[in-house]
Amino acid sequence: MSGVPVACCQVAPVLRDLAVNRDLAAESVAGAASLGARVVVLPELLSSGYVFESKWEARECGEPRDGPMVSLLTRLATDLGLIVVGGFCELAGDELFNSAAVVDGSGLRAVYRKAHLWDAERLWFTAGDASPVIVPTEVGDIAVMICYDLEFPEWVRLPALAGAQLLCAPVNWPASPRPDGERPAEIVRVQAGASVNRIFVAACDRAGRERGVDWVEGSVIVDPDGWPLAGGSAGTGVHTIVADCRLGDAKDKSVSSLSDVMADRRPGLYGRVTEEMTSDGA
Amino acid sequence: MSGVPVACCQVAPVLRDLAVNRDLAAESVAGAASLGARVVVLPELLSSGYVFESKWEARECGEPRDGPMVSLLTRLATDLGLIVVGGFCELAGDELFNSAAVVDGSGLRAVYRKAHLWDAERLWFTAGDASPVIVPTEVGDIAVMICYDLEFPEWVRLPALAGAQLLCAPVNWPASPRPDGERPAEIVRVQAGASVNRIFVAACDRAGRERGVDWVEGSVIVDPDGWPLAGGSAGTGVHTIVADCRLGDAKDKSVSSLSDVMADRRPGLYGRVTEEMTSDGA
Repeated sequence: MSGVPVACCQVAPVLRDLAVNRDLAAESVAGAASLGARVVVLPELLSSGYVFESKWEARECGEPRDGPMVSLLTRLATDLGLIVVGGFCELAGDELFNSAAVVDGSGLRAVYRKAHLWDAERLWFTAGDASPVIVPTEVGDIAVMICYDLEFPEWVRLPALAGAQLLCAPVNWPASPRPDGERPAEIVRVQAGASVNRIFVAACDRAGRERGVDWVEGSVIVDPDGWPLAGGSAGTGVHTIVADCRLGDAKDKSVSSLSDVMADRRPGLYGRVTEEMTSDGA
Repeated sequence: MSGVPVACCQVAPVLRDLAVNRDLAAESVAGAASLGARVVVLPELLSSGYVFESKWEARECGEPRDGPMVSLLTRLATDLGLIVVGGFCELAGDELFNSAAVVDGSGLRAVYRKAHLWDAERLWFTAGDASPVIVPTEVGDIAVMICYDLEFPEWVRLPALAGAQLLCAPVNWPASPRPDGERPAEIVRVQAGASVNRIFVAACDRAGRERGVDWVEGSVIVDPDGWPLAGGSAGTGVHTIVADCRLGDAKDKSVSSLSDVMADRRPGLYGRVTEEMTSDGA
């Protein structure tokens, strides 16, 4: 491979069984390493599972950023020479966050806290207030956001403007109906987000029914043209996808001899959006 | 039909032949009306064709907003009881714009000037400096932008924030290679733009080779879930698509019992984008 092998491990976390989920993490990361991966993305809330029914239950699954899951991921990254991005249920003081850790051989590089909370998540999690993390690594600049964050184009734009080459997104995409022959809408939005920003995106979904909720099982790695390099279908169960990502390509924002998706922006005109947002009072 | 029948007339304008292009406009709009359309979208630069080779040549094709093409569209709208959105090469004083007119039975409602100029367009056109037009009509609030404008999520967001229900986009999508089985990336981005904003989008492409340039020929009408209601394939030649659009659906921004794509935005965090844009000096 001439680029950076990036993997998404689409595993099936077990709700509230933190020890089993650590085993899943260890097995799947080792498996991805054996496939040659240098960057490994794991699902959202891998440590805990997703479908909580109460604030109390969610809190019971929380662990600090120096707790067992992040420590395990750091050890795996060190032992296997990897960069790992994985979701965990973060307890910090009195607050719970839907977080993702970025670890490499040097230890914990960053924790990102999901800023856009989906549906009932707002009942147990506090929303993050920081921009998407960008971590300079040996293979390139890696940004992180989580699931529903991807649906806000303003949010995907931020790390792209700041130079991110690969956006790693732990996700848990709940399955929903779609017309025959259509790709899941979540994947379509990832494709668009990658192409308008000319970055790579690796979205790692989960598998396994949980309290009646099924998942898209649609992990995908998309190139700066928006084409899936690996994954991109639904219902693919537990498995790992790997794609060779020439991350340097994400530095080139040109799309024709005179057009460049970043240089062609009209930021002076977009400020009106911000004003409208502000007047919306959110 | 229970909604508003919206049509896109994918015609093949003839470069520099303004009279023939008016005939195409008249025939195709009448054809769309006979199919029951209430809103008719026509391609970008329908009046003139697209592949200019010099500023002089482009200017020769320019006409004012009270010139023959817009006058024709207004007459058609009045006679047939339609709302028509069509692209034309606008000469205004000393400047040339890549514009779209919105006309209805009451006359010319608005002219939008393309703000994001694609590739060589910048050699002959002046970029518009106004926000995407939103026109309140009998059938709902209609917004207009043109082709490459759609590739800037900030721009698509603006009319959605302002309440637009249907975004009409005259386009000329130049054909480019794509992997087998993939839908054209331009359509994927339209799908994503519709779904993250929960609006309808009608993008009217063109057909016909012009100076060696082929077009996607991929006109599409997409619903607020991002699914194509009509069109969405490439290479479909000269034809008209029509879809029933329940424009009221675009007023509902909810995507789950607690989630709403507009209410869930974090505008206070996106201002950083604007700052970065400004410091980019564009």
